[in-house]
Amino acid sequence: MLHFSKDDFSGWERFYRANLLNSLSGFKATHLVATVNRQGLPNLSLFHNVVHLGADPALIGMVNRPKTAAPHTLANIEVTGKWTMNSVHPDILEKAHQCSAKYSDGINEFNECGLTAEWKNDFAVPVVGESSIQYALSLVEIIPITHNQTFFIIGKIEHCWIREDLLTPDGFLQLEKAETVTSTGLDAYFVTQSIGRFAYAKPDLPPRKI
Amino acid sequence: MLHFSKDDFSGWERFYRANLLNSLSGFKATHLVATVNRQGLPNLSLFHNVVHLGADPALIGMVNRPKTAAPHTLANIEVTGKWTMNSVHPDILEKAHQCSAKYSDGINEFNECGLTAEWKNDFAVPVVGESSIQYALSLVEIIPITHNQTFFIIGKIEHCWIREDLLTPDGFLQLEKAETVTSTGLDAYFVTQSIGRFAYAKPDLPPRKI
Repeated sequence: MLHFSKDDFSGWERFYRANLLNSLSGFKATHLVATVNRQGLPNLSLFHNVVHLGADPALIGMVNRPKTAAPHTLANIEVTGKWTMNSVHPDILEKAHQCSAKYSDGINEFNECGLTAEWKNDFAVPVVGESSIQYALSLVEIIPITHNQTFFIIGKIEHCWIREDLLTPDGFLQLEKAETVTSTGLDAYFVTQSIGRFAYAKPDLPPRKI
Repeated sequence: MLHFSKDDFSGWERFYRANLLNSLSGFKATHLVATVNRQGLPNLSLFHNVVHLGADPALIGMVNRPKTAAPHTLANIEVTGKWTMNSVHPDILEKAHQCSAKYSDGINEFNECGLTAEWKNDFAVPVVGESSIQYALSLVEIIPITHNQTFFIIGKIEHCWIREDLLTPDGFLQLEKAETVTSTGLDAYFVTQSIGRFAYAKPDLPPRKI
């Protein structure tokens, strides 16, 4: 095994360090995040660091980079308190990756990158029409991470829209079938292959596939 | 597309709701998280909701469920301020899943589940010897998420150990080659297939694979 310590990290070239330390923590939940500004103009951006915080209430957390690097999504959420999150698939991957470019304020990335803005159920922010899984959130809390000027944004799920063939009888969604994309490092994308589901683990029972 | 709103969520059976809302947010970064208690006895637990917060300083965030559901890892981190995170692979998946069982306090899951505790570079907490990627952290901050009694634990990476053949010249780690496992829903595990890496996106250039 190769061994590196924090003293090594600080000596590395910036992109080498970012690639390695981003890869280290594994696969991430790639999402297209849509917002609108005060005038209702849409913005679309690519987020990778997303967590499920809980199901009841239905809470999601996502990491916003420092304001200097990624200002628009956060500013729009601060103003409107609303956003949508949308799954990425191989057929829209190039367009989704292009949404990570630093477009100027006031540019509508849906138009620039060729993705479809769809307004649904009177929610103020559009979803990405090409996504198989779309959900709409309202702001719960923005937690500033003071150690590196990032933000942990917590939202409550208000609506979700799911391609009908993905839902199974126990509520599980077939993300492999949807070819939902996952990412790692700065720029690497993957689809997945199932290796199994397991029964709820108990101390006195051996693990069992379901 | 199927449409559900928050009023639907609250009426669903508990595991159905958890499966669906866990699946919604995509693939997660499955890790075995090792800690030790005040007496130095190891604990090993399975975490899914892990984010990369930044590379300089090298910060990781992870979600700990409420103390009533998952008390030991958090309690150990509160006492020692140290833990390790370890990748999961198909050949140890059954053992890793078994680590999610609610073992009593004082039970060493390394022994119960058949995984190898290895102490490295004088770090106080062992790594999982079977993992291709292992890293050691010191506590930066524990942020209580008051909306559902979970915790967002932030750590700084002190050391990492990487299987030598996974590191590429630009710092990217070949997680697909390592068969690093990703998860979704409550209990579903996946390996990945690369669909490409892209050049840094710029507003005035088309997306380009590298």
